[in-house]
Amino acid sequence: MRQVYLDYFSKTPLLPEVREAMIPWLTGQAGNPSSLHGPGRKSAQALDEAREAVASLIGAEREEIIFTSCGTEANNFAVRGLAAAHAQKGKHLVISSTEHFSVLYAARRLEKEGYQVTLLPVDRYGWVNPDELRKAIRPETVLVSVMHANGEVGTIQPIEEIAKITKEQNVLFHTDAISACGTIPVDVKRLGVDAMTLAADQFYGPVGAAALYLRKGVKIFPFLDGGGQEEGLRSGTENLPAIVGMGKAAELAREKMEKRNRHIIRLRDKLIQGLLSVEGVSLNGHPTRRLPGHVSVSVPDIEGESLLLALDLKGVSVGLGSACNSKALKSSHVLRAMGIPDRQALGTLVLTVGLDTEEADIDYVLKVFPEAVSTLREFSLQTATNK
Amino acid sequence: MRQVYLDYFSKTPLLPEVREAMIPWLTGQAGNPSSLHGPGRKSAQALDEAREAVASLIGAEREEIIFTSCGTEANNFAVRGLAAAHAQKGKHLVISSTEHFSVLYAARRLEKEGYQVTLLPVDRYGWVNPDELRKAIRPETVLVSVMHANGEVGTIQPIEEIAKITKEQNVLFHTDAISACGTIPVDVKRLGVDAMTLAADQFYGPVGAAALYLRKGVKIFPFLDGGGQEEGLRSGTENLPAIVGMGKAAELAREKMEKRNRHIIRLRDKLIQGLLSVEGVSLNGHPTRRLPGHVSVSVPDIEGESLLLALDLKGVSVGLGSACNSKALKSSHVLRAMGIPDRQALGTLVLTVGLDTEEADIDYVLKVFPEAVSTLREFSLQTATNK
Repeated sequence: MRQVYLDYFSKTPLLPEVREAMIPWLTGQAGNPSSLHGPGRKSAQALDEAREAVASLIGAEREEIIFTSCGTEANNFAVRGLAAAHAQKGKHLVISSTEHFSVLYAARRLEKEGYQVTLLPVDRYGWVNPDELRKAIRPETVLVSVMHANGEVGTIQPIEEIAKITKEQNVLFHTDAISACGTIPVDVKRLGVDAMTLAADQFYGPVGAAALYLRKGVKIFPFLDGGGQEEGLRSGTENLPAIVGMGKAAELAREKMEKRNRHIIRLRDKLIQGLLSVEGVSLNGHPTRRLPGHVSVSVPDIEGESLLLALDLKGVSVGLGSACNSKALKSSHVLRAMGIPDRQALGTLVLTVGLDTEEADIDYVLKVFPEAVSTLREFSLQTATNK
Repeated sequence: MRQVYLDYFSKTPLLPEVREAMIPWLTGQAGNPSSLHGPGRKSAQALDEAREAVASLIGAEREEIIFTSCGTEANNFAVRGLAAAHAQKGKHLVISSTEHFSVLYAARRLEKEGYQVTLLPVDRYGWVNPDELRKAIRPETVLVSVMHANGEVGTIQPIEEIAKITKEQNVLFHTDAISACGTIPVDVKRLGVDAMTLAADQFYGPVGAAALYLRKGVKIFPFLDGGGQEEGLRSGTENLPAIVGMGKAAELAREKMEKRNRHIIRLRDKLIQGLLSVEGVSLNGHPTRRLPGHVSVSVPDIEGESLLLALDLKGVSVGLGSACNSKALKSSHVLRAMGIPDRQALGTLVLTVGLDTEEADIDYVLKVFPEAVSTLREFSLQTATNK
C-alpha cells in the first residue's frame, strides 16, 4: 500500500543534509559551548554560526536570536517575558482569537496574574481586521501578539499593516511565525515586528530547536534562570546538535524557498481542486493569502477523527486541526472564531503538502479520500436509520 | 599530541549505542507523538518506552516522569512550579548554599515575588547539616531543595536523612540529582524525595532531554502552556530523538553502572593521588562521599583559567568549577560557602573521569599538570618581582 504523508504542518521530516550537519555534534566529544577548553570553544563557534544562519533567514542580526527548545517555549517566553518586562506601562494585552494555544494559554496565565486580555475577532477567512486592532489598543496596552500564518487554516495575516499600527501606538508587537518562517519570505525589518517566534521542525530542521527573535533594544524578562546562556535570558546547556541542524535548515530554506514553493503550490492547488470536487467539501482559510503547502477542508456531518483514521488505514497521514496536540482539541477555537458552524468544523482535516510529496501521492489521496467520505456517510446514514 | 578529555561533568560524550537508538528518529517521517495517524502513534509509543526506561533508572513510575529540554528547565520548573502550586501554605523556601545556579537563581526570582529564601550553610566538605535544616524549616515553608551531588566539588549529600526531616515536617523536598543520576544508584522511593531533576547529558545521553520526577499526587503549577503535552504540565512538541536517546542512556546506565564505576573510581583515585603530590594542591569536597569520576583541586596563587588554558595547549580539557557557564563564575559560590579562601578558590579546576578515560590519559595528565603549575608559578613570581 502506498504511504502518503500529508502532515507537514504537524512535523516536517528532517532533510538528509540537515541530519548530516547534526551528526558530528552527536559524535565523540563535542564540548559544552560554555566550556573554555578547545572542544568547548569549537562548540561555541558552531553555535555562533547557527545563530548567524537563523538570523540571515529572517533578516535579523545575530544578537537578536535567542535559542529555545521549541516554539511553545519561545511563544511562552515572548508573551510572559515581554509582559513582565514592561508591566510598569500597563497590564493589557491584545491577541487574535486564532492564536496557537502556546500564545492563547500564556495570555490566560497572565489574566490570572491580573492582566487583561483582549481577543481580536477575525473574519471568515481568519483575518484580523487592522481597524479592530486599532480600536482594541489602550494606553495601558503593553503587547500585541498576532500570528504570522495560522497553521490550522493556512491564512497569512497582514503583519506589516498590524506592525504599522502598533508602532504608531507605541505598543510592542510579537508574531508567532512558526508556520510561516522557512516557508514563505519573512523579513523582520520589512515586517516591522519587535519579537517573532520560529521553529526548526517547521522547515525540515530538527525538533528541539526554535528561536525567539527580539529586536535590539527591546527589554524582556529572562525565561530560565541559571548559568546565564543566551545572554542570561535563557539559561540551560544549549542543544547544540539541534541548533546546528536549525542553522543548516535555515540556510537551505533561504536558498531553496522559491524552488520548493513552485513544486508545493502546484500540488497543493491540485489537491484543493480535487477535494473541493467531492460533494459538500469546503475549504477553510483565505483562498489566496495562504501558506504554500496548506489545505484545510471541512466535510459536514462526518467526524474529522473518523475520517483521519479511515485515511490512515489507506496509508495516508493527515492532520486534525491543531496538530500540536490533537487530544487537546475538541471543536477548534480557530474555526469557531471564523464563524464556521460546528457541523462543519468537527469534520475538518488539515492536509499539508511538502518537499517530498509527489504528484502520484496527490492522485492517490484524491482516489481514497472520496471513498472514505462515502463509506463514513453511508455508515452515519445507517446509524441514523437504525435509531 | 595526546587529546585527553577530563570534563565529563560539563558534558558526557554520547555513547554510540545511544546515537544508534536516536538515528531512526532523525530519519524520514518520524511523526509528531501527538498526531493520531500511524507515524504519530509510532512516535507516541517510542515516547512511552523512553519514559519507562527513565522511570526504571530511578525506581519511579512512568507517570511520574515529566520530560523537559534540559536540567536547568527542570530545576526552574521544580522550584517555581512547586512554590506556586503550594503558595497557600506559605512563601518560604529552604535551599542549600551550594545549589546550582538553576535552583539558586530560580529561588532568587521567587524572592522578588515576595517569597523568603533561607540558604543552608554547608561544612568544609560541602555537606548540609540535617540539624541546620530542621531549624530552618518554618510553618510557612513550602519547599526544601538540596542537590543530590554537587557537580563542582563532587560531594554527595545525605538525601535520605534530609527527606526524613522534610517528611516529618510535612514540607516538599526537591533534589537536583543532575550530577548523581545515572552515575550512582538513585532510587526515589528509597531516598523519599517528592521531586527530582535528572539530565541525559550527564550519563552519556544527548543534550536536549532531561526530566523532572514528580511523586504521584504532588501538585505542581504547569511550566509551559500550550498543546497540553506531558499531561498539560510541559506543553511543546516533544524532542523525540533526544528523549529516545535519554531512554537508551538510562537503560545502559542502569545495567552498567557498577562496571563503569569500578573503572572510573580506580582512575579517579589515581588522579587524585597524583595531583595531591604536587606541592600546594588540595582536594575540594568530601574525601569519600563523592561522585565516582569527580576530582576538584585547588592550586593556591594560580588562576584556574590560566591553568585550564595551559592544560588545553597540552591537549587536556578540564573544567573550571561550575561548567554550565564558566563566564558566569567569578569566585565560586560553592567554594565560598565551604569556607575555602579566595586565594585557593580562584585556582580551582574540576577534572572528571569518564567511561572512555584510559590509564594512559591519567599518566599524561599527571605529567603535564605539574609542568603547567610550575610554569605559571614561575611566571607569577616574575611578575611579582618586576613590580
